[in-house]
Amino acid sequence: MQNTKRPTIPAAEEILGGYFPVLDHGFVALVDYMGSDEDIERAARVSYGYGTRRTSQTRGLVRYLRRHRHTTPSEMVELKFHCAMPIFVARQWVRHRTASVNEYSARYSLMPLLFYEPQAEDFALQSTSNRQGRGEGAPAEIYREAARRWEELRERASEGYTWLLESDVARELARIDLPLSTYTQWYWKIDLHNLLHFLTLRVDPHAQYEIRAFAEVMAGMMKRVAPLTYEAWIDYDLEGRPFSRAEREALARLLEVADDGAIAARGGAALSAEDLKGLGMSKRELSELADKVTPPGHPDFDLDLRRMRDAEEVGREMAGAVPGAFE
Amino acid sequence: MQNTKRPTIPAAEEILGGYFPVLDHGFVALVDYMGSDEDIERAARVSYGYGTRRTSQTRGLVRYLRRHRHTTPSEMVELKFHCAMPIFVARQWVRHRTASVNEYSARYSLMPLLFYEPQAEDFALQSTSNRQGRGEGAPAEIYREAARRWEELRERASEGYTWLLESDVARELARIDLPLSTYTQWYWKIDLHNLLHFLTLRVDPHAQYEIRAFAEVMAGMMKRVAPLTYEAWIDYDLEGRPFSRAEREALARLLEVADDGAIAARGGAALSAEDLKGLGMSKRELSELADKVTPPGHPDFDLDLRRMRDAEEVGREMAGAVPGAFE
Amino acid sequence: MQNTKRPTIPAAEEILGGYFPVLDHGFVALVDYMGSDEDIERAARVSYGYGTRRTSQTRGLVRYLRRHRHTTPSEMVELKFHCAMPIFVARQWVRHRTASVNEYSARYSLMPLLFYEPQAEDFALQSTSNRQGRGEGAPAEIYREAARRWEELRERASEGYTWLLESDVARELARIDLPLSTYTQWYWKIDLHNLLHFLTLRVDPHAQYEIRAFAEVMAGMMKRVAPLTYEAWIDYDLEGRPFSRAEREALARLLEVADDGAIAARGGAALSAEDLKGLGMSKRELSELADKVTPPGHPDFDLDLRRMRDAEEVGREMAGAVPGAFE
Amino acid sequence: MQNTKRPTIPAAEEILGGYFPVLDHGFVALVDYMGSDEDIERAARVSYGYGTRRTSQTRGLVRYLRRHRHTTPSEMVELKFHCAMPIFVARQWVRHRTASVNEYSARYSLMPLLFYEPQAEDFALQSTSNRQGRGEGAPAEIYREAARRWEELRERASEGYTWLLESDVARELARIDLPLSTYTQWYWKIDLHNLLHFLTLRVDPHAQYEIRAFAEVMAGMMKRVAPLTYEAWIDYDLEGRPFSRAEREALARLLEVADDGAIAARGGAALSAEDLKGLGMSKRELSELADKVTPPGHPDFDLDLRRMRDAEEVGREMAGAVPGAFE
Repeated sequence: MQNTKRPTIPAAEEILGGYFPVLDHGFVALVDYMGSDEDIERAARVSYGYGTRRTSQTRGLVRYLRRHRHTTPSEMVELKFHCAMPIFVARQWVRHRTASVNEYSARYSLMPLLFYEPQAEDFALQSTSNRQGRGEGAPAEIYREAARRWEELRERASEGYTWLLESDVARELARIDLPLSTYTQWYWKIDLHNLLHFLTLRVDPHAQYEIRAFAEVMAGMMKRVAPLTYEAWIDYDLEGRPFSRAEREALARLLEVADDGAIAARGGAALSAEDLKGLGMSKRELSELADKVTPPGHPDFDLDLRRMRDAEEVGREMAGAVPGAFE
Repeated sequence: MQNTKRPTIPAAEEILGGYFPVLDHGFVALVDYMGSDEDIERAARVSYGYGTRRTSQTRGLVRYLRRHRHTTPSEMVELKFHCAMPIFVARQWVRHRTASVNEYSARYSLMPLLFYEPQAEDFALQSTSNRQGRGEGAPAEIYREAARRWEELRERASEGYTWLLESDVARELARIDLPLSTYTQWYWKIDLHNLLHFLTLRVDPHAQYEIRAFAEVMAGMMKRVAPLTYEAWIDYDLEGRPFSRAEREALARLLEVADDGAIAARGGAALSAEDLKGLGMSKRELSELADKVTPPGHPDFDLDLRRMRDAEEVGREMAGAVPGAFE
Repeated sequence: MQNTKRPTIPAAEEILGGYFPVLDHGFVALVDYMGSDEDIERAARVSYGYGTRRTSQTRGLVRYLRRHRHTTPSEMVELKFHCAMPIFVARQWVRHRTASVNEYSARYSLMPLLFYEPQAEDFALQSTSNRQGRGEGAPAEIYREAARRWEELRERASEGYTWLLESDVARELARIDLPLSTYTQWYWKIDLHNLLHFLTLRVDPHAQYEIRAFAEVMAGMMKRVAPLTYEAWIDYDLEGRPFSRAEREALARLLEVADDGAIAARGGAALSAEDLKGLGMSKRELSELADKVTPPGHPDFDLDLRRMRDAEEVGREMAGAVPGAFE
Repeated sequence: MQNTKRPTIPAAEEILGGYFPVLDHGFVALVDYMGSDEDIERAARVSYGYGTRRTSQTRGLVRYLRRHRHTTPSEMVELKFHCAMPIFVARQWVRHRTASVNEYSARYSLMPLLFYEPQAEDFALQSTSNRQGRGEGAPAEIYREAARRWEELRERASEGYTWLLESDVARELARIDLPLSTYTQWYWKIDLHNLLHFLTLRVDPHAQYEIRAFAEVMAGMMKRVAPLTYEAWIDYDLEGRPFSRAEREALARLLEVADDGAIAARGGAALSAEDLKGLGMSKRELSELADKVTPPGHPDFDLDLRRMRDAEEVGREMAGAVPGAFE
């Protein structure tokens, strides 16, 4: 513990440097942060660092900013993570270009031989409705056979990698046949505005389950750094939905608004599927609209502090999985 | 005219290099472009450059991508503009960091002495509802007096600038008392994804009128480069609106959806202002919701080709406004 | 003072939140930071946060990274500043796009009527050798007349601005005739890699004096956050110089290297101006080369702590310069 | 062929849409471009699009800009590529964040079962001097055994992938055990400034051979789009070298410059290894300096047009490698 004049957030300090397991061998740790909700307000108002404002005022401003997409003040908060994830997850993750990354180098260092193995309950068939996702669970015998094949291939890949290293072949060549399920790790630093964009896309049910698992833990960490922003993000982004011009046209026909803002269903108003198509909506948009007017959910990303692990212990495990570690 | 194997769009070629006046001395010209709607599709499908698809397929994909915020394929289209605008407009504009800019240098070159003078109909009082915009028009006598003061100050600033240059004072110092209404100019290059983000913010009624005037012309240019994307942008972005979690909660209570996607007002369903506040909405959000459920507009950004001017003529005018140009 | 587990740097804490005057009414304050030299090393090695390394090891790695342009680890350190500067300086500054900015809004707020007045010793003629900079000092009578004109124009601009506000004209319109010498302010946050790029360009003698004055103070602040990186930046960037292919060709003819790395002038070796041009160098490149082989300088950006001012006091001054502040 | 008013470059048109093979199954094709050397000049001078300048003037300006790191004008030129590369190469490539990427999706589509197999002459031992690269060639028997293992593992991975797809398992799961040597493909668009940065790092002998092979072809394509910039890049970036403060100190002691720019070895001047260390240089820096004062190379990235292939043919090959393609 050290003394600082910087803005300090007890809820964030409580988990700082703690490693939260994700999937079978992965983790996320919040290793540093800069700023909080109050700093978003301070930047939005370009104010001097003295005096205090009531939390209710800060909350109102934070919500206003988020609702109206005034996102630059939230760039003033920064978070730094240490993460380990399968390479196929890392490849999706790194597509978010507005972050700083330092990845463990397989040209310079030896890769720990840790591979991601999906659990039976996460093992699913190709979705029939969504051309890029998972649908129903796969039959148990398919899972068993898949697991057998994973084991066999990874054993062979590990042997090959180890043999090439023992033969003193360049590391950058030895690693080329490691499978995409191999774990890698990195430091990842991002500002709050861009983190929220990442989280919105990656906690979404359409994101691949494996990256979602990471995003959910990071959402819980973000909540501890900037709780008012977290709440506004849930309310305006994650559980909000965009309505198109055609959908607004439909709403205008179905609803009426009183001067005081009260809103009522227009008696007898209805739009058939054909009516909606007449407004320019495709078949797919009809089912999207149906989804938007169902009651929103209540997602909860609270961290389970009992799962938090020690940096030293996690580091030892990683080091122990490197070829020849215990020779 | 030259021959090229690159994708070429006749509607864009028609205006390429033509200068469209904006405000009293400003302009926008589309000076180059790369790609069109078809290239968005090609990138989204990572397809080879042979074969053709029907426009209806391209339209469906472009709309799907935009609706679901799959924005990376639209980064594959690029537009380059030459623009002249008052410095206070340039200062708002340059806050969009994802563009390439080359601005006319007042350290190296002489500034044309052209200043923006608001017209009477654009001269307005501070808004009472919106703390950063314009409200009602200002009285005519205020406008007359303002115009007198503009004229006087600009004459004095011009004299000062010219005198400093004649005294051989460094240009970077001579320009420091030019007013923010002085015109500057730049080349500005941006990809379509980021241009749409810019346009969404800058054709908005809350944007300052003077930058809106530029954005509207650029929207008309963009429509010629990528008409399907333009249409999707109007439908899903510009005339679309985000609904918050609380607003979706309200919609769910007021509407019911049938299995075939038909949607109807629930008989007698109504939410009072108090009910809406009970869902967590602030007073301001009530009036925002009222606005969202009114029928959307039909913006039209078509260019008026009769206004298009020749590069040479515009260049001569600018050069003629530089101190000592005709000596 | 608060307790934190985050990396904390006493030299940075000493100045945190202190306001350092720049020019006549400007300032720079370091208001927050994240990380230090040790975090650069930790990111470069993707290491866990326990254990310690000797400073000499960290220094060697930091220098190696900087020399070889491995810049991503230095993105892991972040600094946040509060600054006030003339608008013409802000316009140069904001061209660095890889930072987060929140500027004081002249649409929403009233501008303090503070203007930058160059001092006699900084008032110079247009450079004859460099087409965009300052050369010799200007005659005293030119300075006196310039100062008289500044005073007059600013008084008139202030009166105009105040009168428009009193007439309740929209603020976004009232400000359009403020001169470029008017002070604005912002929060500015940037990572160390991009800050160094900014500083290299802006402490350079070719940068306009007024922005250089800000960059020099920020260099002093950066030195307190990451002293080893600061030292490497001086040695490899600021006082280093790029040698072109032709210049290397010249060096190869003039010097010889022994196996142990000793380096000696080749007896009698010489290249005339014509010889150098024969290697492809322009006349201008000859004088650039002459400059590169003169002994490098010893720049010193240490802060003068006696100049540090209190946030509250500075804030009061700014607020006091707003029109009608003391009514 | 179509008519356009856009700047058109015959040397670029000649290869536009042609596929150049790289490694065993990869390729690079230039599929679109915007602008050329003349557009860099036009942006730097913020000039209107009429009138012409002599090539020698353009060359002088382009070289001046590059030498002095005025890089924004080169952002005005844009190139778009279609590329196929092994995943381990894609992972290095994508670390350059200032480009737009659309990658072939393994969640949505089936992966072609094409794998990179190093050739015997590129198969090397870990470098002893450079901790992240290749050194001497590996013994032939090691290569034979490696090739046997590659074949076996890839056959097994292909079988596994195909079996999972036949079992209708989600594609995003089926692909997790494909090796890093599997080929992927993408569209990649970047401006010339950022492309040059990429190329400088990736044609460097320290870059992994496999990514270098791609960068070299792209350098040849860039040369056709902007030949004057290409030349300046070779002269000032690729074959130039940075000299540190200590190295400049050394040069100042060894050389003397005459008023006309002539430069000569100082008679008898010499610096021993100890002297150089006394200037602050490390042992490693001594060998780096020795390298810098050897004569620069003459890299040549000209494309071999005989290798250019047809889009259709390449597309058929890729499609044919997808599981079940010929059933």
